[in-house]
Amino acid sequence: MTNYQYRLIDYPAGRRVADFWQLCHEPVQQLASGEVKLRVDWISVDPGMSGWITNKRSYMPPVKPGEVMRAFGVGEVIESNCDTLVVGDVVTGFTGVATHAVLPARHLRKIDTRLAPAQLYLSALGMTGYTAYFGMTDIGRPQPSETVVVSSAAGAVGSIAVQLARQRGARVVGIAGGAQKKEYLLDELQLDAAIDYRSEEMAAALKKTAPAGIDVYFDNVGGEILDAALMQMNRHGRIVVCGGISQYSDWEQARGPANYMQIVTHSLTMQGFTMRDYMDRISEALTVLFDGYQDGSLKFRQHVLEGIERFPEAFDMLFNGRNQGKLLIKIT
Amino acid sequence: MTNYQYRLIDYPAGRRVADFWQLCHEPVQQLASGEVKLRVDWISVDPGMSGWITNKRSYMPPVKPGEVMRAFGVGEVIESNCDTLVVGDVVTGFTGVATHAVLPARHLRKIDTRLAPAQLYLSALGMTGYTAYFGMTDIGRPQPSETVVVSSAAGAVGSIAVQLARQRGARVVGIAGGAQKKEYLLDELQLDAAIDYRSEEMAAALKKTAPAGIDVYFDNVGGEILDAALMQMNRHGRIVVCGGISQYSDWEQARGPANYMQIVTHSLTMQGFTMRDYMDRISEALTVLFDGYQDGSLKFRQHVLEGIERFPEAFDMLFNGRNQGKLLIKIT
Repeated sequence: MTNYQYRLIDYPAGRRVADFWQLCHEPVQQLASGEVKLRVDWISVDPGMSGWITNKRSYMPPVKPGEVMRAFGVGEVIESNCDTLVVGDVVTGFTGVATHAVLPARHLRKIDTRLAPAQLYLSALGMTGYTAYFGMTDIGRPQPSETVVVSSAAGAVGSIAVQLARQRGARVVGIAGGAQKKEYLLDELQLDAAIDYRSEEMAAALKKTAPAGIDVYFDNVGGEILDAALMQMNRHGRIVVCGGISQYSDWEQARGPANYMQIVTHSLTMQGFTMRDYMDRISEALTVLFDGYQDGSLKFRQHVLEGIERFPEAFDMLFNGRNQGKLLIKIT
Repeated sequence: MTNYQYRLIDYPAGRRVADFWQLCHEPVQQLASGEVKLRVDWISVDPGMSGWITNKRSYMPPVKPGEVMRAFGVGEVIESNCDTLVVGDVVTGFTGVATHAVLPARHLRKIDTRLAPAQLYLSALGMTGYTAYFGMTDIGRPQPSETVVVSSAAGAVGSIAVQLARQRGARVVGIAGGAQKKEYLLDELQLDAAIDYRSEEMAAALKKTAPAGIDVYFDNVGGEILDAALMQMNRHGRIVVCGGISQYSDWEQARGPANYMQIVTHSLTMQGFTMRDYMDRISEALTVLFDGYQDGSLKFRQHVLEGIERFPEAFDMLFNGRNQGKLLIKIT
């Protein structure tokens, strides 16, 4: 049985993204005690992956050159050497960008595919949904009638974050790139206003769409959009630092928010998080997201590419924004 | 009676600091109802003044070109047209950089010069002390045995902030410019460690002096020191954004913290404040600071320049760091 895998060639340093990856294969390894063998069915392609292939300090050890690229995935147990999982169980965990994985059972979580299709546990009902939930409700904490602005609002996390803010009675403005995404924000997600950052001047657009100023800014992009938002924050506003995709793509030329002194002048709080902070509260998020999924009120899009060989292309999409919704690779 | 005043010529834009100011004089104006006339005795020269002479958005309306420069001062009432203050009362408030001021009594706060010399109400027992107190205890919240790092630690706010952190049982590292200030931090303020940012490489120096990482970083400077601190922050660390003197001096070329994505990877909180946020809690700070002043445990230095004509030189000192302690101008 052959395991196809994408391995990291080297840390990126301003080079073309596709040059980082090498498709390799090797026999699937043998099981040790407590381990299971998975056939990987889906993998999730996330902006956070950038933080795993850097030699800058990050929240987990980086993937080293030569190693299989880390990825969150869903797979089915095809062989078990443990007491807790049996053949046929479907699980999520760090499978890596691979067709097969051998992992300790304790690193995996069993999911129920009768309640929702497996891939949803990688998107709206998985880390993506949880990230939106805790970022918006625990850090942003929008109050009714406050103004919430979300960047990458048509993206995987952003599109759920805006809906959670609306549920809480906030006025919600979404920022996205391109007319089509702006339309999606207004027509499908029914936001109060939307900005196409590619064709609109940010400062003027924010003044117009958030005339009472911004109380919560949920940031997925960093760079100039973060700088523009800083200048419109209301006193005691909260900036949820969820990601900074504009920073990841320019690997060596990270650029901090030049307007950060607004944090002082307007008594702002800028707070970051990773899902590590909320592992003991996942059921809280899942309850809310599942309710929305079951009654059809929670809207989300998945952008599926088929075949492990699409991984470099999918990773590229994180930076060029060509995907529409949560990026997933269907392996089998 | 002549009122000598420093007026702002224009907003600074990369020019020599001394070129912003013009010494003017005019007759002291007449009192309206509810007003008092002051002979200004002391004025406080603070980094925060930079935020008052910018046309960027700030927390108060800027001083406009042609207006008397705003300053916090202490003065004695020499004529009163109100019920609440009488001739001989000593008060603090926004007197401006001037030898005299006519102000509504409700904008002034009476102080008791039998308890402490008047100028202390501009330094350790005034806004400077309050800023250190609320920034450290309310935002930084150091716990016993945590590591606290303070920039401009030999400065007016920083030197009080480090002492408050030590009182709470934290391990405290101070950063200052020059061997003399470093010595002051170690010998006088008895800090656990100190760094001279002019002669030491920041990343290495922070690794050495804060080997367990930084839990609270109290920032007065921004720029490269903030960037270096970000890389050493422990998970769930707090960054108190008190000021950013390195940013104020380079008026047009503000530079954000390039390493700000550490906020995400390490779940950091970066929070700013101004004294507006704490006006109703001043007595809490004053009690603690007064106790330290009366029993002699609170150490502080004042750097006094005599004569209003020293104002441009004093303002310059905020950026070149030649002052030793809280900068005050003795007017009379």
